[in-house]
Amino acid sequence: MTTPEPDIALAEDLFEQLAVKTRQGQGIVRDSYGPGEQAAHDLIAAAGEKLGLEIARDAALNLYLTLPGKRRDLPVIMIGSHLDSVGQGGNYDGAAGVVAGLAVLAGFRAADFQPAQDITVMGIRAEEAFWFDIPFTGSRAAFGQLRPEEFLVPRSDSGRPLADHMQDAGCDLTALRAGRASLDPAQIRAYFEVHIEQAPLLVERDLPVGIVTGIRGDFRYRFARCLGVYGHSGALARDQRRDAVAATVELIHSLNSAWRRIEDEGRDLVFTVGELSTDPTYHGPSKVAGETRFVLDIRGLEAASMRELAAVAEAEAARIGEAAGVRFDLGQPSYCAPAIMDKRLRGRLVAIAAEIGCAALEMASGAGHDAAVFTEQGVPSAMIFIRNRKGSHNPDEEMEIDDFAAAARLLSGLLTRGLD
Amino acid sequence: MTTPEPDIALAEDLFEQLAVKTRQGQGIVRDSYGPGEQAAHDLIAAAGEKLGLEIARDAALNLYLTLPGKRRDLPVIMIGSHLDSVGQGGNYDGAAGVVAGLAVLAGFRAADFQPAQDITVMGIRAEEAFWFDIPFTGSRAAFGQLRPEEFLVPRSDSGRPLADHMQDAGCDLTALRAGRASLDPAQIRAYFEVHIEQAPLLVERDLPVGIVTGIRGDFRYRFARCLGVYGHSGALARDQRRDAVAATVELIHSLNSAWRRIEDEGRDLVFTVGELSTDPTYHGPSKVAGETRFVLDIRGLEAASMRELAAVAEAEAARIGEAAGVRFDLGQPSYCAPAIMDKRLRGRLVAIAAEIGCAALEMASGAGHDAAVFTEQGVPSAMIFIRNRKGSHNPDEEMEIDDFAAAARLLSGLLTRGLD
Repeated sequence: MTTPEPDIALAEDLFEQLAVKTRQGQGIVRDSYGPGEQAAHDLIAAAGEKLGLEIARDAALNLYLTLPGKRRDLPVIMIGSHLDSVGQGGNYDGAAGVVAGLAVLAGFRAADFQPAQDITVMGIRAEEAFWFDIPFTGSRAAFGQLRPEEFLVPRSDSGRPLADHMQDAGCDLTALRAGRASLDPAQIRAYFEVHIEQAPLLVERDLPVGIVTGIRGDFRYRFARCLGVYGHSGALARDQRRDAVAATVELIHSLNSAWRRIEDEGRDLVFTVGELSTDPTYHGPSKVAGETRFVLDIRGLEAASMRELAAVAEAEAARIGEAAGVRFDLGQPSYCAPAIMDKRLRGRLVAIAAEIGCAALEMASGAGHDAAVFTEQGVPSAMIFIRNRKGSHNPDEEMEIDDFAAAARLLSGLLTRGLD
Repeated sequence: MTTPEPDIALAEDLFEQLAVKTRQGQGIVRDSYGPGEQAAHDLIAAAGEKLGLEIARDAALNLYLTLPGKRRDLPVIMIGSHLDSVGQGGNYDGAAGVVAGLAVLAGFRAADFQPAQDITVMGIRAEEAFWFDIPFTGSRAAFGQLRPEEFLVPRSDSGRPLADHMQDAGCDLTALRAGRASLDPAQIRAYFEVHIEQAPLLVERDLPVGIVTGIRGDFRYRFARCLGVYGHSGALARDQRRDAVAATVELIHSLNSAWRRIEDEGRDLVFTVGELSTDPTYHGPSKVAGETRFVLDIRGLEAASMRELAAVAEAEAARIGEAAGVRFDLGQPSYCAPAIMDKRLRGRLVAIAAEIGCAALEMASGAGHDAAVFTEQGVPSAMIFIRNRKGSHNPDEEMEIDDFAAAARLLSGLLTRGLD
């Protein structure tokens, strides 16, 4: 069978308008529950209306654009991603997934193809924890999952709480606080998310699209500290020191070695210290440092490997602390489970990619995505990555429209050929 | 012979008055060329006047209190230390040396002991680089050594240049700018400096005084950086990263190993990273760090050992930078040569300590002192350390008056018995 061609001209036009409406200086600013995100929602809703799609919004103002299927009682197929961006972000992170859904449905409209069941494009709110330090606010709200304390979390720029910003945007706070779900996992046949890759793996392999195996979980010590004793850098001999920097360096060095060992066994794991600082109020060029603060970020597709490295961190912190006369306080770790993509859907994507001549790589997603929320809710989910140069969360994101078209064609091919 | 007993009651009284006049909140504040330092100078000058000593000041407002000797044409013996403190410092760092000199001379007065040549107690200005980032401002000024650009260095609290603060204090800037020296090394027989120990070695060894072998030099990379590339901590595999933290940790780990090797060979060396930070503007818990800033501080009694570790730093920065895809920029190092104390004076101090029953330890000074300036000028110099708990440069400095008395007696013993 032939696959209805996604409307790439529409996609290009939408990307262009998104950039025009939400660029501030160098970068894109689609602030969660702020005017930037709203502008993107308005634009996408207008495009859906022009295509004759059914338009709905939930209590959290997630946007739903639906192409009715032959049978309306069957569980719906959803194509979603987020429409917010980080501050000074790029044009494609998030938006590409929503635009891909619209391009596919526009192709269906043009080819007069009516799917077996409803297909809904979901424009998700507030995915970027950049604004509110909350994971996946919009998609979790759709499942009635927001916790009471999360409404109090301040936005990083305004300092005002989530509830206030939601109120201003027009959300139904009563429904959200009551945990009323607008999505029922049992009524969703599958969730698909198209997203630009945030690492350069597809660029390196010279392949246009990736089929995601799973989304790495995150085991994180966000507020780790090492407490030593300040002293004179010239006067103290090695055995007189209680040097927080030296001990912290030993800990990180040891964890890097443990990471390499786990990696050498072929297990999926990444380990990062992205923040590390002595205290500017007390440190000095002639001082032994009495304190460090740092983050230990452990991610992987298997909980066991993450927990293994975390156990090494705890054990090494105790051992090195004892030997160096310092005290490590790693703090309370946070844990976000890995989300394994649906095996059957992945298999279908791989098969159809081969059938339509789309060169694709099976790969893990290092970053978190709303697809993890759908997976946790028991919805069979799959993700397609688009090759992207220069990373994400910066103004220089560089996605070729041909690669976007390849991803949209793969999705269109799956939806027309059926998920089973 | 019997040694004239230093006037310990006078010393106690001076310490008490110094604390009363220069305490601000928890700590002592004797700001260089500010009211705190001036208060200390006024107090010491008044005490010298009361003892009938000759009082003089030079262009930089260093204070000279002289007990005339039998022959006034012979080179003078000097006993000096500084009267400033760091911000929120302790009562003894610096001041103890000046008070020790006064206590000895007061003892001479009381015992009617007239030395062979003049003995001058010098109250030195602006030793603590805490205020102006300049080494040994007062003692270098006395030798006409201040460089033109140093007059422009801002004070860390006021932001105003050294020249302005000197002007306000009443210095002779014309003489200072012209490099006119008020001290002639050829006219100084010896320089002695009594100082609290800034490390806990004497506490650990349970000994009241130390006889300093030398003052460690300092080879320092003050503004070292590692430049990598920011990226997503979950998305980037090891070989896709250009991780500034991971590379910096490797560099410091490697330098710690090299330090241990040099130390194991019995050579005097200490190595410290007292400041280390990712950039708070750009770092993040979910990011691979694209930059670190840090200090490499290398100190020792032998230039060769310091330069050896510095060479390791340069070589390892190149090697690790290459391997990790980052670039280290260690910046321009600063170098302050080690100052070896006069061998004959040290020998005399050791002999006299044994003779008068003063338990003393020969040891290196890790911190810099004005004695290094006198040594560099070719003046035979020696230092006596006083046991001190809880380090220096903090309000908790803890010197026992009995230990102070032991140091003063040792100095008095040497001055009465003769330097040769």
